Amino acid sequence: MVANMTEDQLLVLVIKYIKEAKRTALQQLLDELHPYDFAQLYRGLPEKHHHKFLTFITPDQIADLIQELEYDLQIEILQQLGIERSSKVMNLMDNDDLADLLNELSVDKIQEFLDVMKKEDSQNIQSLMSYPAETAGGLMTNQFVWINADQTVRQAVDKLKTYAGFSENIYYLYVINDEKKLVGVVSYRDLLIADLHEKIEDLMFNRVVAVHVDADQEEVAQTIERYDFIAVPVVNDENVLLGIITVDDAIDVMIKEATEDIEKLSASGKDIDFNTKAITASFRRLPWLILLLFIGLVSGSIISGFEDTLDQVVALIFFMPMIAGMTGNTGTQSLAVVVRGIITNDIDRKTVIKLIFRELRVGLIIGITCGILIMLIAYFWRESLVLGLVVGFSLFLTLIVGTLAGTIIPLLLYRIGVDPAVASGPLITTINDIFSLMIYFGVATMFLTQLSGL
Amino acid sequence: MVANMTEDQLLVLVIKYIKEAKRTALQQLLDELHPYDFAQLYRGLPEKHHHKFLTFITPDQIADLIQELEYDLQIEILQQLGIERSSKVMNLMDNDDLADLLNELSVDKIQEFLDVMKKEDSQNIQSLMSYPAETAGGLMTNQFVWINADQTVRQAVDKLKTYAGFSENIYYLYVINDEKKLVGVVSYRDLLIADLHEKIEDLMFNRVVAVHVDADQEEVAQTIERYDFIAVPVVNDENVLLGIITVDDAIDVMIKEATEDIEKLSASGKDIDFNTKAITASFRRLPWLILLLFIGLVSGSIISGFEDTLDQVVALIFFMPMIAGMTGNTGTQSLAVVVRGIITNDIDRKTVIKLIFRELRVGLIIGITCGILIMLIAYFWRESLVLGLVVGFSLFLTLIVGTLAGTIIPLLLYRIGVDPAVASGPLITTINDIFSLMIYFGVATMFLTQLSGL
Repeated sequence: MVANMTEDQLLVLVIKYIKEAKRTALQQLLDELHPYDFAQLYRGLPEKHHHKFLTFITPDQIADLIQELEYDLQIEILQQLGIERSSKVMNLMDNDDLADLLNELSVDKIQEFLDVMKKEDSQNIQSLMSYPAETAGGLMTNQFVWINADQTVRQAVDKLKTYAGFSENIYYLYVINDEKKLVGVVSYRDLLIADLHEKIEDLMFNRVVAVHVDADQEEVAQTIERYDFIAVPVVNDENVLLGIITVDDAIDVMIKEATEDIEKLSASGKDIDFNTKAITASFRRLPWLILLLFIGLVSGSIISGFEDTLDQVVALIFFMPMIAGMTGNTGTQSLAVVVRGIITNDIDRKTVIKLIFRELRVGLIIGITCGILIMLIAYFWRESLVLGLVVGFSLFLTLIVGTLAGTIIPLLLYRIGVDPAVASGPLITTINDIFSLMIYFGVATMFLTQLSGL
Repeated sequence: MVANMTEDQLLVLVIKYIKEAKRTALQQLLDELHPYDFAQLYRGLPEKHHHKFLTFITPDQIADLIQELEYDLQIEILQQLGIERSSKVMNLMDNDDLADLLNELSVDKIQEFLDVMKKEDSQNIQSLMSYPAETAGGLMTNQFVWINADQTVRQAVDKLKTYAGFSENIYYLYVINDEKKLVGVVSYRDLLIADLHEKIEDLMFNRVVAVHVDADQEEVAQTIERYDFIAVPVVNDENVLLGIITVDDAIDVMIKEATEDIEKLSASGKDIDFNTKAITASFRRLPWLILLLFIGLVSGSIISGFEDTLDQVVALIFFMPMIAGMTGNTGTQSLAVVVRGIITNDIDRKTVIKLIFRELRVGLIIGITCGILIMLIAYFWRESLVLGLVVGFSLFLTLIVGTLAGTIIPLLLYRIGVDPAVASGPLITTINDIFSLMIYFGVATMFLTQLSGL
């Protein structure tokens, strides 16, 4: 029945069950839902029903629910449940999600929960919480099934059956030796086809790809993406297996990283979404804006350095916004190519030199095209050949410089270990403003005698 | 032995095997590699060895290799192999990868390959090739294992064993009825724990999440991400199961979409990477640049409309680049928030109104902050209170307008069905240039009598 109901129909039914206190019916209905749909349902449920809803469902179901929710709803549920029932739910949660949740709480609160947890779970969680959030250690879970190389397929299958409910990842079985070092991996597909008496060591794949526990989360995501893995093992310096990271966590990392790239490219500040408060969003955006304000004033002082030129040729001002804008635009275009390219390419000297020369040629081509175009426009609009030549030649030069600045600045940042995406579009635009004004007024001043009086 | 060798050591060994014509040793070595490492090895192998290498390895290995390579290397291999051996390799490839490869060839060439393929394979491929590339149909494979609801766990396990080598996805088993309609799904974990005599219909999860064959690839990726799936089934209007899409293909879509967002936001044109030729890159970038050039000239004509004001107050020019730049910057920041927010939020009237009012408040806060700052700077730098007030008040107004433009323009585009990311940073910047100049010179003209002579 549940199979074909819409979200709204489900919600109506759930509220009905809550009002009529039909525990079993409610629990059965929820068992038919995916955790994501379950969480959507909870988000749609009026707040006055939350308490009853939580008392009616099983700890297992609460664990599923809480793992899908955002932080503030998680905290609300923990408060509703009280410490004892919360700890029961926490025992059922995936370790990586639980560690993330606990990391958001105060030290006192964390200790309170750890104290009532089973000792083994509490130790597992504490060891996970010791890794920095954006590393492999911070992403991994230590709930996984491992086996010794000298065991048989039958033993492996039996072990899997025992742990199937407990383990998050049931796609690969990692093989370790007596020192707990990772020596191989067997896929479930291989186990399925294999003879029950075969030994794991004869079956396993021994060139295992693993990530180091200190590896950056971006490297983890890249490994999973490149190898099309469902999960990747995490090891320490001694190659001891510490945990696994599953593909769904890698996807979350990729989405986060892509969003961060866009945030940086637009200098929009970290973590602003539709729900961020105006005052918070403003304070995240202001540092960049104030920096750019001062850089923008540099442009102003450049112009004031050419006050004499401007006084004599007022017509020059009309083309100023266009030239400054175009230089910023071409810089932003080059920047985007570099920022995305760095993710997928290995950056060596050869690649860098090749890229810079490519962009130089791009700058030449678009410089010639746009330069000739604006020369004709300036000539026909203001009826002065000299002005046309000055504007056209300036645009030609600024487009080359702007293109190269948009390429070289992010590459230099990458070289010195700074994320090149911080060379945001606005920053490149503002820096290119300065270059373009210097070139434009420089060229104009050279031709001043021919231009004056326009 | 292979387990701990570096990429370079492997390459040296491979070349040695090729030179000494040690087929078996080469094949055994390659069997120990992941397809990604295998492909990296092939990319590193000097071209003179390619032909021998390809003749030494098995069709199975070539199929693994070809699926990991980029298009031009794929074509090179097909040419080296000749039509007959190519078709043998194609029979071993995953259907979705094969369909993508064939789609790149000429119609004649496609027909040639289809003719020599097994009839069943050829039909499967042709049906896959009929779906548009960026839809669920274009992403899916039709190699998967299905089962009827009234069969038992034992029958399911037997079927899986038979097809394990053939099926790309061995994580879920999809359940269909007599009309081939999708009615349920069972995970391998569930099969593993279940009693062999149980019926599939008693075990299966019947609220199956599926995507429609015409669904956009972004929707497919979102579904897999939200539900943490390893694969998602694809159905038609009648809910008939047509194929499956695996998580690795969804990851490729996400990376592509994020890159496209950045390309659009920076108006950098489609598909420019480190290897694009300069002339191609230029022609992809020029349309945007030329459009922006003309919009930039509008700014120029606005200035020329205020020629009298400018003649009287030359000092106004010094603050012009800063004011225009800041308006563009705040617009770009707002744009980034909207573009990323649209991906993760449901956009209804309430959300839109809430967002616009939030950004209005953001505009007010940053407008007041930066306005006061620049007022003080202008006052102390140029020693004129009126100029300070004019510049400060103008920046206050332009920041509010710029913030709202960066919010409302992409929302309007989204409303009329245009991808809001085309409202790129450069476009918003250039449009905001126009707004800012109108406001700045407008305000200045109002205070002209107090300003003149500065």
